[in-house]
Amino acid sequence: MVSERTSGKSGNMWMDPAGIEAESMRRIEEALGREEACAGGMKWQEPERSVVRRVIHTTADFDFAGNLFFSQDAVKKGREALAAGKPVITDTNMALAGISRPSCLKFGNAALCFMSDPQIAVRARAEGCTRAYASMGYAAEHFPDAVYAVGNAPTALFRLSEIIQSGTSAPALIIAVPVGFVNVVESKELIRKVCMEKDIPLIAAMGQKGGSPVAAAIVNALFYGIPEI
Amino acid sequence: MVSERTSGKSGNMWMDPAGIEAESMRRIEEALGREEACAGGMKWQEPERSVVRRVIHTTADFDFAGNLFFSQDAVKKGREALAAGKPVITDTNMALAGISRPSCLKFGNAALCFMSDPQIAVRARAEGCTRAYASMGYAAEHFPDAVYAVGNAPTALFRLSEIIQSGTSAPALIIAVPVGFVNVVESKELIRKVCMEKDIPLIAAMGQKGGSPVAAAIVNALFYGIPEI
Repeated sequence: MVSERTSGKSGNMWMDPAGIEAESMRRIEEALGREEACAGGMKWQEPERSVVRRVIHTTADFDFAGNLFFSQDAVKKGREALAAGKPVITDTNMALAGISRPSCLKFGNAALCFMSDPQIAVRARAEGCTRAYASMGYAAEHFPDAVYAVGNAPTALFRLSEIIQSGTSAPALIIAVPVGFVNVVESKELIRKVCMEKDIPLIAAMGQKGGSPVAAAIVNALFYGIPEI
Repeated sequence: MVSERTSGKSGNMWMDPAGIEAESMRRIEEALGREEACAGGMKWQEPERSVVRRVIHTTADFDFAGNLFFSQDAVKKGREALAAGKPVITDTNMALAGISRPSCLKFGNAALCFMSDPQIAVRARAEGCTRAYASMGYAAEHFPDAVYAVGNAPTALFRLSEIIQSGTSAPALIIAVPVGFVNVVESKELIRKVCMEKDIPLIAAMGQKGGSPVAAAIVNALFYGIPEI
């Protein structure tokens, strides 16, 4: 059944992940271009556009072309941080599973999630907070200048907001893309306000949408766009 | 900052994951109800509705209320399979990471993904296919009546379609929710045709949308709805 779909030009196109990805990106650019033509101008320039494209690739949801927010030079600064081997901290094991291992190996980045760590459960119980909240506190103590990729928990963003406001840590980049219906919008508005005040680079999906794969896709889009040396 | 938001009624509502989930589900039901009132009737009944609700909870995307497809009694049969301890096979480690461990422990289900297994890479190279395609072939040899949750790779669905057509395996349930722009729509149409012909239970997200968290959310919605004995 698959053999019927083989392509003479590119070998078995149905079995070529790199070819499929390139074709996907071409179709995304085409659709983005159509939207922009209707709106009367290009909404996203590079390097931000590379991130927008990859998030749409991950979700098939063009709403992200409207709701992504980038602070000034956030993509550039995020790439510099990753190229310098800064660790990446996530708020879910799902996001962690989505981060490109070859990229981490190439640039020497740890990729860490403390959500399942027994001591985080102990802390959360003792402090009456969520594990996500406790895990960000723990991470910031040990990795104050990491890249933080939050795809699930508003309380993770609340903790990061407190930490940034207190000045005890200055993350290299915050990726703020929780998904959902309760506290999600508010947590993103808050982290945006705090990051702007304290000049912390931020990439966020405003509104209700986001998720662990979006968080991982943004990290990967940053990795893939680091210029070869 | 978080303390300002504590609620006298439910303790610190911002720190109560169960309370937040219940409130999220209430808001989803409210929005679904509004949509249905406009359309002039209830689109989803239980038990399918519990799956629709959890997918929207995971994505904040109400498109899934339109694009989910359930074969006759798929939810009931899926729950019976999980309650009987059938293994769950995924096509990504991300989907695997999203499946409820407490539920697997409760019902004695293995949850497995072979994508990173070295022998799958060897097979894929030898056969000139994707790792997803090779991993489904391997899984079906060893776990012919498992629940298959495919959230990423159209080629995984192509392989499962071949296997089901050949009659060598009869999965307990196929969850077909890859996301993307190339081969995705076609792979879902194909597996739907094959599952209908061979009477294999199917839950699918038709169209381009889906993803690993959607696959995991569907598995979890099935788990959470298994009646207490």
